[in-house]
Amino acid sequence: MADQCVFCAIVAGTTDAHYVFRDTIATGFLDKRPLFPGHVLVVPNEHHETLPDLPELLIEPLFTRVRRVAEVLRHPFGAPGSFVAMNNVVSQSVPHLHVHVVPRTRGDGLRGFFWPRTGYDDDRHMAATAARLAAAYAAA
Amino acid sequence: MADQCVFCAIVAGTTDAHYVFRDTIATGFLDKRPLFPGHVLVVPNEHHETLPDLPELLIEPLFTRVRRVAEVLRHPFGAPGSFVAMNNVVSQSVPHLHVHVVPRTRGDGLRGFFWPRTGYDDDRHMAATAARLAAAYAAA
Repeated sequence: MADQCVFCAIVAGTTDAHYVFRDTIATGFLDKRPLFPGHVLVVPNEHHETLPDLPELLIEPLFTRVRRVAEVLRHPFGAPGSFVAMNNVVSQSVPHLHVHVVPRTRGDGLRGFFWPRTGYDDDRHMAATAARLAAAYAAA
Repeated sequence: MADQCVFCAIVAGTTDAHYVFRDTIATGFLDKRPLFPGHVLVVPNEHHETLPDLPELLIEPLFTRVRRVAEVLRHPFGAPGSFVAMNNVVSQSVPHLHVHVVPRTRGDGLRGFFWPRTGYDDDRHMAATAARLAAAYAAA
């Protein structure tokens, strides 16, 4: 765990987050400033800054979880598509590897603009979205 | 191999591409309409449409290669950062899973706009970029 890393704190549970899943390898939680509601961040529990820094042994477990989140968005959550992305160093707001998994629907406006984010209506909307995803994830 | 899939044809070598690597699992080649020169597409050789469709056994070998390309962009190629992304279904131009691995530098303008792509000066510039990446990849 790195001092003062907000994602390490979310992994440890010492900072609040809307979790989608937590296990011994990785943690999934909602991005606070989503591209669209249902925008999940998947992080390795260990502090590694970027994809090139990720130990080889963590690749399969991390991306198995990312795939599972994408599947969850596609099927139980009802988004026909997803956008899966990570920024390494440049445009990386938190220097702890995080994989964005974003639900996509046709005509949602993401094509052309990458960062004009929408928000949740309120904390309740955000919590309900996390709960729905967490349930779907646990059942997948 | 899927009929009329341009990426299957690139994997098979029946359509021209500027390859960064080819092996029994995956193929890396330059995107023809790059966000920036050095923009690589990594595809599984087998035809799978999206990340959720990717067989679990291919996750580790595919993303090991993606990581290796990102490392290549970071170190021998000299870009401080990278953008790694895949579109599943929505905004997915070719329905054969492809992971974009894009070199990033600070102030390159990608933040805010995702698709206004730049091009290569000419085919020679493109070939030279592929050759440089392929050499760095082989040596990594």
